[in-house]
Amino acid sequence: MENLLKILSSLKEKGLYREDFRYLSSEQAPRVCIEGKEIILLGSNNYLGLCNDIRLKEAAIDAVKQYGLGSGGSRLTTGSYDLHKSLEKKIADFKGTESSLIFNTGYMANVGIISSLCDREWVIFSDKNNHASIIDGCLLSGAKLVRYKHCDMDDLEKKILEHRGNNNLIVTDGVFSMDGDVAPLPDIVRLAKEYGMITMVDDAHGVGILGERGSGTASYFKVTNEIDIQMGTLSKAIGSIGGYVAGRQYFIDYFRNFARSFIFSTALPPSFISTSLKAIEIIEKDEITRQHLLEMANWFKNRLIKAGFHVTNTITPIIPVVVGDVKKTVELSESLLEEGIYVPAIRPPTVPKGTSRLRISLMATHTYHDLEYVMDVINFHGKKLGIIEG
Amino acid sequence: MENLLKILSSLKEKGLYREDFRYLSSEQAPRVCIEGKEIILLGSNNYLGLCNDIRLKEAAIDAVKQYGLGSGGSRLTTGSYDLHKSLEKKIADFKGTESSLIFNTGYMANVGIISSLCDREWVIFSDKNNHASIIDGCLLSGAKLVRYKHCDMDDLEKKILEHRGNNNLIVTDGVFSMDGDVAPLPDIVRLAKEYGMITMVDDAHGVGILGERGSGTASYFKVTNEIDIQMGTLSKAIGSIGGYVAGRQYFIDYFRNFARSFIFSTALPPSFISTSLKAIEIIEKDEITRQHLLEMANWFKNRLIKAGFHVTNTITPIIPVVVGDVKKTVELSESLLEEGIYVPAIRPPTVPKGTSRLRISLMATHTYHDLEYVMDVINFHGKKLGIIEG
Repeated sequence: MENLLKILSSLKEKGLYREDFRYLSSEQAPRVCIEGKEIILLGSNNYLGLCNDIRLKEAAIDAVKQYGLGSGGSRLTTGSYDLHKSLEKKIADFKGTESSLIFNTGYMANVGIISSLCDREWVIFSDKNNHASIIDGCLLSGAKLVRYKHCDMDDLEKKILEHRGNNNLIVTDGVFSMDGDVAPLPDIVRLAKEYGMITMVDDAHGVGILGERGSGTASYFKVTNEIDIQMGTLSKAIGSIGGYVAGRQYFIDYFRNFARSFIFSTALPPSFISTSLKAIEIIEKDEITRQHLLEMANWFKNRLIKAGFHVTNTITPIIPVVVGDVKKTVELSESLLEEGIYVPAIRPPTVPKGTSRLRISLMATHTYHDLEYVMDVINFHGKKLGIIEG
Repeated sequence: MENLLKILSSLKEKGLYREDFRYLSSEQAPRVCIEGKEIILLGSNNYLGLCNDIRLKEAAIDAVKQYGLGSGGSRLTTGSYDLHKSLEKKIADFKGTESSLIFNTGYMANVGIISSLCDREWVIFSDKNNHASIIDGCLLSGAKLVRYKHCDMDDLEKKILEHRGNNNLIVTDGVFSMDGDVAPLPDIVRLAKEYGMITMVDDAHGVGILGERGSGTASYFKVTNEIDIQMGTLSKAIGSIGGYVAGRQYFIDYFRNFARSFIFSTALPPSFISTSLKAIEIIEKDEITRQHLLEMANWFKNRLIKAGFHVTNTITPIIPVVVGDVKKTVELSESLLEEGIYVPAIRPPTVPKGTSRLRISLMATHTYHDLEYVMDVINFHGKKLGIIEG
């Protein structure tokens, strides 16, 4: 155990130790209560404000009354409810696919999909900025993992020519969670077709934000039918919890029979399935909220750029301010918290070394008034810490 | 994709294809509604009947009103609530450890714990009947995996002498989910001490059932302080959803910093954290329900044995009837369903080949009246199918 203690103290020296959490004592909303203080929350994935929507609360409460709490078993034993069936049909309709399957989390979806589909005979081409759960799925599969430069199609093609085998998968985030930018899906689809490869998109942060009816990045680029495996989550814009895979029927049949993270886990509670159903119903019809969010995000991004901050190439409500240095990033985050604004500092290994950042993200329910205040404060402290010119 | 289709049709030929699910349209209880019919449910992990307990429903509904639905972020960003802190303290008190950490599912707990603790320099000794999520954690870690015969301490010691390295872990289920029997923890602890190894117990099915205040298998054997890592779930007897790890503070600090399935996943919704808190409060005080369940399970087990069924060596509410042949097991399950009793047939790869079984499990809320009916029906069809003598 001396070894663990050594690792932990080395982490502390580097400023990378995760000491404790910030505990909220109120719902996920533009203003929250942290340690008794009212704080503007600026790093949430609750993009559309559905985590605290009254319609979702009513759906959850009704379902708790009718269906109780835990599901009591795995989907293959006693834990499947009519609500699971309805949600799987709803997700397939929403995503424009033949069928879908719910996993308990996005992490479990990625791990289950990739490790059941691929084995040592496969080569997986993965964007360098893909989510950690994709990497864990690749490692668990035993496939050869080839990482290409972030959104760099020349590098992808070069690596395909170098490394491709008999079975190949290209996997990418749709919207990158720590960058807010979008994968060039039309180019990926073109390369996949040219070289006979399977395509998979993790659209955790694209759903509810981009595409027709908010159905995600594949729809945004009009390549829905060309993406073989559409994975996503129910815990970001959808405001609930869970993950899913959507695609052709035989893929879903296959994952139902072979994805171990699906088979060997207690099913999600019916009440949260009901919450997700209600959320997708709302999202499909609510074009206005989505437009408002994207306009507000664009306005805020431009204000940050004009102030001299280094903002990533984002088109989504994720607007990361890249500071670079770990300690300076933490200092900026702490200064903002003292002024009543909470934006988590994101450090390695979540982002590459030298790119520590404040991952600002907006909710549709933020007000321009609060965001003006944020701009004032971040300008002041950005100058004070020498992050932007004074 | 021809390959996937081939694999699926070969599975169908073997009778191992998972076609579709049985969908419940009511809460997890001794009697449920499946496809419009009232059915006795006999394979649930809702051992204490808490999945549909009114006190848990009230806790969940109150929390939905106050905290909303989804948590909106990972524990390290915006998804930690005061309820998470309270539950982690409660779990540590309940389990008799210094600290604890909540994961989203038991699968994620096992995968995160083992893959962060161990690497290629480790040797992991794992019981052959351990849960699939333990195996996936071992595979992801890259450690050398040595599987010993189920609960066979001679085989474990032989394999330790053959394979041990500088860093070694012994990992076992506390109660085996598909057998209902209990790992010989005192012997495992003795061997671990003798050879300087770390010990880990997955007590998904022991918590709420065995030990002081229902705190699990380590307590049952009075070896709480000798087990380094106590993993468990919140989705079985506790009636909610989630997993956890409990142990000494430095272990928890380590997992908080390195377990990827913890770091890279949206936190569990506050309302289900509240449900789990209430459930543990109830379990700690309710000795009577636990005793009643164990007595009823023992009675039922003895009835099955007397009737001639092959029952595993269980001391818990999990009472598997081993049939052996896949098709006969499915036939028995289907015959029971026609008579209004649902017990899922468990087939490979969930259990070893040739040991297909009906995994009967009882809830404290079952009635002797219903169980007498079950005995009559299972006797009749057991004879008809030639599983027991007629």
